[in-house]
Amino acid sequence: MNFNPGPAALPLAALQRARDEFLDFANTGISVMEHSHRASQYEAVHDEALALLRELLAVPEGYETMLLQGGASMQFALLAMNFLRPGRSADYVVTGAWSEKAHSEGNAWAAVVGACTRVAASAKAVGYTRAVPPGEAQLDPEAEYVHFTSNETIQGVQYAELPRFGTAPVVCDMSSDILSRRLDVSRFACIYGGAQKNVGPSGVTVVVARREFLDRGRSDLPSIVQYRAHAEARSLLNTPPTFAIYLLRNVLAWLKETGGLTAIERRNRDKAATLYAVIDAHPAFFRCPVEVSSRSTMNVVFRLPSEDLESAFVDEARKNGMLGLRGHRSVGGIRASLYNAVEPEWVSALAEFMSDFARRSA
Amino acid sequence: MNFNPGPAALPLAALQRARDEFLDFANTGISVMEHSHRASQYEAVHDEALALLRELLAVPEGYETMLLQGGASMQFALLAMNFLRPGRSADYVVTGAWSEKAHSEGNAWAAVVGACTRVAASAKAVGYTRAVPPGEAQLDPEAEYVHFTSNETIQGVQYAELPRFGTAPVVCDMSSDILSRRLDVSRFACIYGGAQKNVGPSGVTVVVARREFLDRGRSDLPSIVQYRAHAEARSLLNTPPTFAIYLLRNVLAWLKETGGLTAIERRNRDKAATLYAVIDAHPAFFRCPVEVSSRSTMNVVFRLPSEDLESAFVDEARKNGMLGLRGHRSVGGIRASLYNAVEPEWVSALAEFMSDFARRSA
Repeated sequence: MNFNPGPAALPLAALQRARDEFLDFANTGISVMEHSHRASQYEAVHDEALALLRELLAVPEGYETMLLQGGASMQFALLAMNFLRPGRSADYVVTGAWSEKAHSEGNAWAAVVGACTRVAASAKAVGYTRAVPPGEAQLDPEAEYVHFTSNETIQGVQYAELPRFGTAPVVCDMSSDILSRRLDVSRFACIYGGAQKNVGPSGVTVVVARREFLDRGRSDLPSIVQYRAHAEARSLLNTPPTFAIYLLRNVLAWLKETGGLTAIERRNRDKAATLYAVIDAHPAFFRCPVEVSSRSTMNVVFRLPSEDLESAFVDEARKNGMLGLRGHRSVGGIRASLYNAVEPEWVSALAEFMSDFARRSA
Repeated sequence: MNFNPGPAALPLAALQRARDEFLDFANTGISVMEHSHRASQYEAVHDEALALLRELLAVPEGYETMLLQGGASMQFALLAMNFLRPGRSADYVVTGAWSEKAHSEGNAWAAVVGACTRVAASAKAVGYTRAVPPGEAQLDPEAEYVHFTSNETIQGVQYAELPRFGTAPVVCDMSSDILSRRLDVSRFACIYGGAQKNVGPSGVTVVVARREFLDRGRSDLPSIVQYRAHAEARSLLNTPPTFAIYLLRNVLAWLKETGGLTAIERRNRDKAATLYAVIDAHPAFFRCPVEVSSRSTMNVVFRLPSEDLESAFVDEARKNGMLGLRGHRSVGGIRASLYNAVEPEWVSALAEFMSDFARRSA
């Protein structure tokens, strides 16, 4: 029962498929990772991965779907490098550690080229306990883009409904909830996310961007850091992380088979509701620091009455086969990550353990 | 019999080890790629991979060893971004498609920041058929660095002895021969290479750099594009490509067990000598365009009397179980890539096939 925050649990079916053909992919006698990325056998996997992404996310016409390297952290830099021009500005909505980092990296680039960044809204003053609604943001309509983070993995803060931030192109880091629920891609100039939460292993990053937004990007940078170049090359500009993409393909095939985003969204909401119900049923023992309307379906964070009890909780859970429940070192507490591959039965077992632990410790 | 140019053959022992523990790593009940990159189980793999690299390459004190993403292509950009400052210059030695690309990417960055690049030497006029010796290079002693490529994968051109290019810091792209032979790291400011030829799957890149060279790098860029930040974070600045690093660890463990760089260098030289002997024994049929002293041990390229014969050769070889022999689409001809994991028996079989094909077609 793997509640790791990422890299995280992967669907057993996707892993078994990979294990079974690990040494002999598609009757070729060699592993998929020993094939050239220009060979038809790999290209079929690559194209299927991109097609499944477009299908599952219902990517509209006029958008490019890419599979890149470097994780969300690299996109923090590339975003500013591509779209934040000298003398211009970009807006950032800061709701937790990851949007703070996105802003800090974008701001470093701004200083290098003589641009600037603005914090259009921040929940820092309230300890990152809520997703700031667009109505409270001071948006610059002239911004090159406005960036926000749909789910803050460390703080367990999520936008329950994806917000509309003004008229500038909206860019969203969806690293910890992409493909966990339905969304309307057409409202975004760009969405991106590392695969290692809901979509695959670490080492591959999903980027979906409106073509006309990409066309605004700088064309004078080295090609490897230009989104437009990756889009034009169908994510084969240089050697892609072939095995990571192959596994992502397996995960997406599983996701499609199990009913796509509608089904997984319902399953994910139910899992989260199960844990929040236990938390709310023991208000003297469990405390979720996040405002109810901003509680994450992906990362359920909560505190116990003392750090000693939290340590005992994590240790005892581990002995009961429940892994990865310690909160991020920067905030402490408990965090249960409930990404797509986390089975409802594991969540039920955790809920039961929580109730039992609360009763015994009260 | 996999002669792919990269991604390429991997040692069967390294793959079997991964297959056997694919669903249950180190008795944890989950795959290595489902572990957090901050968990002790993964960290042990990460640290072992870095330690094996340092041991096998005999990395001296004062050097940092890193495992990054993006392949050599990303390093082309990062190198210039980190070390080529406004108003300054960098030298490039151009001996084939990859060093040409490294120069072009570095030059794009130079234009962005008001720096410049120089081609200190080029073999373009002779069709990239030789590794230009340092004596023929017009080196700028004030250059921020001088960049060259030890082995040109597409042209099959290699520096038989690693050259000394003047007094500026020397940076070498060793993507297609790193860990295939011994080398003296202390002569370089930085060496790097994508893993997918000799060291592992695609998706992870080895970078070894002198600490005082790293300290010269810009410290105002976004941290994710600063080498110094990756070095300080032990390549855990952001989520690393954990499964790719795990497999690289398996490959390095195999390399160490089979005798390290001394043994693999001998084995690689013997494999290449076997093929060049067949080429030289049939001068009217096979022609290697590369100067004898620059012939690559990693990528043996040769032409047949006609493109029709070349196509027939590739097709018939494939029917005999020999894969990946078609030359790069930009140059045509035949290319046999003989990286570390290519077994001498496969090379003997190819040599026999070549002799037989030549006799039958003559």
